[in-house]
Amino acid sequence: MYVVKSPLSDADLRIVGGALQGALVDLIDLSLVAKQVHWNVVGPRFRSVHLQLDEVVDVARLHSDTVAERASALGVSPDGRAATVAGGSGIGGVAEGWVKDTDAVRALVDALGAVITRMRERVEVTGDADAVSQDIFIGITADLEKHHWMFQAENV
Amino acid sequence: MYVVKSPLSDADLRIVGGALQGALVDLIDLSLVAKQVHWNVVGPRFRSVHLQLDEVVDVARLHSDTVAERASALGVSPDGRAATVAGGSGIGGVAEGWVKDTDAVRALVDALGAVITRMRERVEVTGDADAVSQDIFIGITADLEKHHWMFQAENV
Amino acid sequence: MYVVKSPLSDADLRIVGGALQGALVDLIDLSLVAKQVHWNVVGPRFRSVHLQLDEVVDVARLHSDTVAERASALGVSPDGRAATVAGGSGIGGVAEGWVKDTDAVRALVDALGAVITRMRERVEVTGDADAVSQDIFIGITADLEKHHWMFQAENV
Amino acid sequence: MYVVKSPLSDADLRIVGGALQGALVDLIDLSLVAKQVHWNVVGPRFRSVHLQLDEVVDVARLHSDTVAERASALGVSPDGRAATVAGGSGIGGVAEGWVKDTDAVRALVDALGAVITRMRERVEVTGDADAVSQDIFIGITADLEKHHWMFQAENV
Amino acid sequence: MYVVKSPLSDADLRIVGGALQGALVDLIDLSLVAKQVHWNVVGPRFRSVHLQLDEVVDVARLHSDTVAERASALGVSPDGRAATVAGGSGIGGVAEGWVKDTDAVRALVDALGAVITRMRERVEVTGDADAVSQDIFIGITADLEKHHWMFQAENV
Amino acid sequence: MYVVKSPLSDADLRIVGGALQGALVDLIDLSLVAKQVHWNVVGPRFRSVHLQLDEVVDVARLHSDTVAERASALGVSPDGRAATVAGGSGIGGVAEGWVKDTDAVRALVDALGAVITRMRERVEVTGDADAVSQDIFIGITADLEKHHWMFQAENV
Amino acid sequence: MYVVKSPLSDADLRIVGGALQGALVDLIDLSLVAKQVHWNVVGPRFRSVHLQLDEVVDVARLHSDTVAERASALGVSPDGRAATVAGGSGIGGVAEGWVKDTDAVRALVDALGAVITRMRERVEVTGDADAVSQDIFIGITADLEKHHWMFQAENV
Amino acid sequence: MYVVKSPLSDADLRIVGGALQGALVDLIDLSLVAKQVHWNVVGPRFRSVHLQLDEVVDVARLHSDTVAERASALGVSPDGRAATVAGGSGIGGVAEGWVKDTDAVRALVDALGAVITRMRERVEVTGDADAVSQDIFIGITADLEKHHWMFQAENV
Amino acid sequence: MYVVKSPLSDADLRIVGGALQGALVDLIDLSLVAKQVHWNVVGPRFRSVHLQLDEVVDVARLHSDTVAERASALGVSPDGRAATVAGGSGIGGVAEGWVKDTDAVRALVDALGAVITRMRERVEVTGDADAVSQDIFIGITADLEKHHWMFQAENV
Amino acid sequence: MYVVKSPLSDADLRIVGGALQGALVDLIDLSLVAKQVHWNVVGPRFRSVHLQLDEVVDVARLHSDTVAERASALGVSPDGRAATVAGGSGIGGVAEGWVKDTDAVRALVDALGAVITRMRERVEVTGDADAVSQDIFIGITADLEKHHWMFQAENV
Amino acid sequence: MYVVKSPLSDADLRIVGGALQGALVDLIDLSLVAKQVHWNVVGPRFRSVHLQLDEVVDVARLHSDTVAERASALGVSPDGRAATVAGGSGIGGVAEGWVKDTDAVRALVDALGAVITRMRERVEVTGDADAVSQDIFIGITADLEKHHWMFQAENV
Amino acid sequence: MYVVKSPLSDADLRIVGGALQGALVDLIDLSLVAKQVHWNVVGPRFRSVHLQLDEVVDVARLHSDTVAERASALGVSPDGRAATVAGGSGIGGVAEGWVKDTDAVRALVDALGAVITRMRERVEVTGDADAVSQDIFIGITADLEKHHWMFQAENV
Repeated sequence: MYVVKSPLSDADLRIVGGALQGALVDLIDLSLVAKQVHWNVVGPRFRSVHLQLDEVVDVARLHSDTVAERASALGVSPDGRAATVAGGSGIGGVAEGWVKDTDAVRALVDALGAVITRMRERVEVTGDADAVSQDIFIGITADLEKHHWMFQAENV
Repeated sequence: MYVVKSPLSDADLRIVGGALQGALVDLIDLSLVAKQVHWNVVGPRFRSVHLQLDEVVDVARLHSDTVAERASALGVSPDGRAATVAGGSGIGGVAEGWVKDTDAVRALVDALGAVITRMRERVEVTGDADAVSQDIFIGITADLEKHHWMFQAENV
Repeated sequence: MYVVKSPLSDADLRIVGGALQGALVDLIDLSLVAKQVHWNVVGPRFRSVHLQLDEVVDVARLHSDTVAERASALGVSPDGRAATVAGGSGIGGVAEGWVKDTDAVRALVDALGAVITRMRERVEVTGDADAVSQDIFIGITADLEKHHWMFQAENV
Repeated sequence: MYVVKSPLSDADLRIVGGALQGALVDLIDLSLVAKQVHWNVVGPRFRSVHLQLDEVVDVARLHSDTVAERASALGVSPDGRAATVAGGSGIGGVAEGWVKDTDAVRALVDALGAVITRMRERVEVTGDADAVSQDIFIGITADLEKHHWMFQAENV
Repeated sequence: MYVVKSPLSDADLRIVGGALQGALVDLIDLSLVAKQVHWNVVGPRFRSVHLQLDEVVDVARLHSDTVAERASALGVSPDGRAATVAGGSGIGGVAEGWVKDTDAVRALVDALGAVITRMRERVEVTGDADAVSQDIFIGITADLEKHHWMFQAENV
Repeated sequence: MYVVKSPLSDADLRIVGGALQGALVDLIDLSLVAKQVHWNVVGPRFRSVHLQLDEVVDVARLHSDTVAERASALGVSPDGRAATVAGGSGIGGVAEGWVKDTDAVRALVDALGAVITRMRERVEVTGDADAVSQDIFIGITADLEKHHWMFQAENV
Repeated sequence: MYVVKSPLSDADLRIVGGALQGALVDLIDLSLVAKQVHWNVVGPRFRSVHLQLDEVVDVARLHSDTVAERASALGVSPDGRAATVAGGSGIGGVAEGWVKDTDAVRALVDALGAVITRMRERVEVTGDADAVSQDIFIGITADLEKHHWMFQAENV
Repeated sequence: MYVVKSPLSDADLRIVGGALQGALVDLIDLSLVAKQVHWNVVGPRFRSVHLQLDEVVDVARLHSDTVAERASALGVSPDGRAATVAGGSGIGGVAEGWVKDTDAVRALVDALGAVITRMRERVEVTGDADAVSQDIFIGITADLEKHHWMFQAENV
Repeated sequence: MYVVKSPLSDADLRIVGGALQGALVDLIDLSLVAKQVHWNVVGPRFRSVHLQLDEVVDVARLHSDTVAERASALGVSPDGRAATVAGGSGIGGVAEGWVKDTDAVRALVDALGAVITRMRERVEVTGDADAVSQDIFIGITADLEKHHWMFQAENV
Repeated sequence: MYVVKSPLSDADLRIVGGALQGALVDLIDLSLVAKQVHWNVVGPRFRSVHLQLDEVVDVARLHSDTVAERASALGVSPDGRAATVAGGSGIGGVAEGWVKDTDAVRALVDALGAVITRMRERVEVTGDADAVSQDIFIGITADLEKHHWMFQAENV
Repeated sequence: MYVVKSPLSDADLRIVGGALQGALVDLIDLSLVAKQVHWNVVGPRFRSVHLQLDEVVDVARLHSDTVAERASALGVSPDGRAATVAGGSGIGGVAEGWVKDTDAVRALVDALGAVITRMRERVEVTGDADAVSQDIFIGITADLEKHHWMFQAENV
Repeated sequence: MYVVKSPLSDADLRIVGGALQGALVDLIDLSLVAKQVHWNVVGPRFRSVHLQLDEVVDVARLHSDTVAERASALGVSPDGRAATVAGGSGIGGVAEGWVKDTDAVRALVDALGAVITRMRERVEVTGDADAVSQDIFIGITADLEKHHWMFQAENV
């Protein structure tokens, strides 16, 4: 049916489209994981971690919208449905139930670490194919690494 | 481990906790489905539906936070992880790929209709158990039915 | 023609639809009566009453929109035309021409009193039929009774 | 009773007072008609027309306040009660019940057209009598003709 | 020295320049008189009149800036110095010392009445000479007559 | 002296009036207790608890105003004077002097718990007497239980 | 236990600490008294006095926070609990029940007058001991005397 | 094709339509010329002139939109394309390359002067044909003459 | 007639009242002088000086209101009428007509210098009589000396 | 005359300067074309397309300012005059007169497509010469391709 | 060269100028030290301390600007260059590298304590020389002592 | 002690860490130098340069925070202490005392030029090591070169 005249060659489009779809799934899952911990964290640092996690949620939601709309702009249909996210996320998962604040911080260090590794790969592979998408991945990585630092710093 | 001294009896807590968990899953899925269509809709009414869907996303995100925090306030750990959402949502699902605007409107009529039916049942079953949670479900139903009307009205 | 699949039974819908239509007419008329006095009041308390009346107008306009859209959401076409309002309002009417500030306050006490009586009946009759609409009527009554108090308090 | 020392002669005051009272009735009715269609419109363009109508409501309410307070400023008691509006409006009326979007647009083209014709006459007759009131009618006409254009443009 | 190339003929410029200078003096004095009463009013209506007077001050300051800059734009040096205002204002003056609220209202009715009479003359004489300046005087008259009405209305 | 024509029967008014007066005293005391701890807390979590307590103060002040004005609207004179609060509050009190952060959190868990228990009783007893007041108590309980959860969660 | 290294000598600290604690009690009571009258005032000037009192509440709450935190900053634990306020306030008290607007104004004149007298003494005694605290008392006195004037002015 | 039912006669429409189209071209060119100088100005007054020019751009863009939409409202298709502007503007043009600040000020004096002369002619010719359009031209002239004065004043 | 119970002795009140009345006259005149130059300045620095002068106007208006209301708060009727200002200002005056930017800067240096000298004397004489009024004069002096510096700095 | 010490070599400056000048012309023309269609579009989708086009205008104006100031920063005088735009734009042009909404959408798809192609070439050629300018072109391309997608999506 | 006519005698100016210059150096260094710790803090309280430090930075920057401009206003050239700050600050310094949160809090207690001691001396020595500068030092001391308290309180 | 798991290799980290630390020192010094001139500039262009310098301060502070937090995010402790800045800045320094406006502009041209040269080298050396940091340096260079142009342009 509907076909956007993409500014990229088919080969480049495959690379970039895959990277965008992968980033979309990672970022939606990051927003869900951060909300999950936001609601379930307990411990003396509850309030601080609770607030910090909503900043991660904001960042993840903002960037998931950007990569999904970038995919659409290139003519690649984005897939952000729950089952797709549950099946394809790069985040190892988070346990159910209440979570101590120290564990919550560790969980975010891990989750952010996993997404960053994959996002840096996307920066690598898209450089030749589409400078615009690469620039988006670079900006996302900057934000994620900033939050990664802050959770690591309070994990000492 | 951590136990909140709930203001409800165990029996009431089971009923209310189940209703809140169910509502959480429905509302997160509604936000994901609405975003999915927001990105994939095509057709002459693209812009109108695209914008309208973000209002549904806002409503669904706002209320999902409210019900999750209400569960926590009652001492029930909420579960809003991707796999839980994928497995337990009351929404029938939405097809992958681009979607014509008329189909997008119909998809939202169906999704909202499914969530409303379940939300009205939650209003019924929680009335005796916890007036506070019931009041939250009533407010959510009001918002969902307003959006349901608007999609139905443009489906003529 | 166009039919919304209402979440209510036909019997309940008749009760709730009638209550919403009645509230719509009362609230539009309240907004017109309050504006009429807002423009025609004279006397030493002119400025205070003039400003106070615009707050009533805001409340009446806000709630008239809410009840009309609630009717639409239930599949009942709302009727807020001038002739319908002129013919069906529960407010006894307000005299033409300039009105002294003490009379203006008394007119509002009467107008608000009349609408409150009918609104409380709507809270009663819709409780079993539709908890969502009832909750809207409860919220409207709270606002009207607050303004009713303030006009009564300055009528001493 | 209360008499403002009007800056106009009695003859001029009669002309200007009549024009302001007529404009008041037309503008209140326009606000009620636009709200009526705002609630009752159905069809694929529902959302666009629904939003557009609230802009007409805002304009009509703003200007109705201006002309009523202008009448008061000249010592002429304005009459904006429901029965006066129902009896004296220049708008032909709008049918009850749901209205298709194309019919909604046509209804607004007609309603705005009727009010504009009368408003232009008011610009004519008040020029010699009161430049201040004339300037108000000119500003109102500009706004109404802009909205008239937009409904005509989408009626093609 | 410095000469602006005025868009008006010398004869028109004399008429318009005089009208603008006169309006400037009246409006500055109105702002000073309103402040004077704002600080000195006493009586049960103190707060209402105190606040109302600051709205007059705002209007008078805004318009005095507009007419002064209009004079500059036509190449006529405006004069808004204290002695010029004290010597040339159309306002009869206001007594020193505390002023009862009823007297305060009457003083404003008189002051506004005096300025309005002169402003309406300016509307008359500038119509042929400069439509732009006339339009400014019309707008000022509208604002002043609105405030005049409100003080008269509370003087009953 | 001054008597509001209450929409409630005398019996209902006694019940509802008592509940509102009790809630007023509890909420004012909650605001004072939270401020007291806000100023006196010490310990590593000082800043977090200090900020969190001001949110409790805001909630308590907002709702104390609502219940007092609801009492006035029903014709019952509210009493929020210091001695009345000191004598009638449901909160057990808070020790004088500096308070360690862990004790501060525990003090708030206790204070909120005491107020919630009484507020839930008010929800119970006012249901038949006045749905409007009951709805206000339900909303207050929701807010208090949310804050109760957060202090409990950080008390682990 | 916890001891702040105060920048003041012990003698100065005793003087300044006493002044701050006294001011805290007066200002909290002023906020409670002003709210009490805000809810209970009746009479033609109801609305004006009702609004004016909330400005006093805002001022009293703002300054009570400032003096309490100033005490903490000097290492003196502030005490703002209900019983302390009820026992130590410099305000003579306010009668229970509805209060006529003229009486309400008189009550505030008295309450503000009492607090001002004590606050001016605090300005005197703290000048040599702590210029920072004195400057705070000077700023509070300025605000209170402004409100005192306004209630006196409308008491004529 | 599409024909708006114009409120003007054919003769009047020709006059007014021509005036609006001419104003549109002048105002778009004024916005382009002001931006051109905004980017190319050099000299000690760079910053002042650079900022001042963006205010001219804002005014020119705002009014160009107003006159274009006024043309549409009268059923006359406006033409604001680059070639039309390049061919029909009343501004003499501006040299390419860097421009000294004194020359920049002089260029704006000339450009504004040229547009004002033509705008005043439009005020003249449209007075009998359409008071609404004339009022728009009067408002535009007021703004342009104010900016004209300011550039002349700094050209001394 | 109306007498405020002043917190000051008669002797102190005479000193402070005179200082406040003197400051009022100086500050109103400063606002009028700054506006006069704001409208009449010409030269290459027109825009910079024109904007800078409006900041002086804002400061002068703000502080004139503060000192007038301070006088009222002490029971001294303030006099800010045009003739009083023209007769009693400490500013030497400003010539009529257009003023070169360098002269404009010098005029402000002189005007501010004159007001500062007198304001510093007011700081001196009120220290013993009323610390509150002295604190107001200190704050005004700080603002005036800041503006004085800036005009001196650009006068080099 | 005036020469900026450019951070680029002459060869790089020629490449980058040419790219910036080309982008400036394209973006100004895009803003003019989008406004032209904004005023002339007719058809059922009028309102949606009308609003969407103003977002394109905002984007085009914002980026045209960025590239022009980037050229200035590199010492290259930008040229954004009407004739330069008319002669050098990469957009094929848009027909005069009213335009059906479907044609309007197609016109924007074409215009955006033409500018995107050229902008991607600028990304290519400036990478080695100036990473800063390249980054600006990448950001512009991202925005344009997003709008391109949206018009394509509603063209189905 | 440039000499401001200072309102102070030479002797007073030396005292006040020295105090302002000393305060400037202390406050700039405080802003740099607070930023240094803001970036380098690690530990469980990372987020809380990180945010708290930016409030200290804001306060230090705000007040450093005030004292520098106060020096300029008195004709004393302020010196806030890096080497001057490095050589003259009253703060003992802060170690390089990562800093544990408990050490970070202690470092701020020390830094604020050192600046407060010197600021209180400035309050002392400037009282006779310049009440305006003294008032600035008093305000700064109030802010610093508030922050000092908060770091001490969390150091328990 | 505390070690962040850096996403970069040791060799890349050394390069990027050095570049970030260098940029931090340059940007802090730029903010101090710009403030120094902001306070000390004199001459006819005082106000323009004074305001312009605060924009440079804002840019320098914003970017210094970004690069310092980027270093932390990579596990490199940033050093922004006064002595480090005084010893390592790339800016040649600025003389003490008052500075004529023309010299002030020249000083900023030099300071910005020095920082830009080093920032462009950082763009070069970090491209292969860390695309995220490089992107930050590119954005900083864009802002600095824009300000560099503006000071150069007014230096003509």
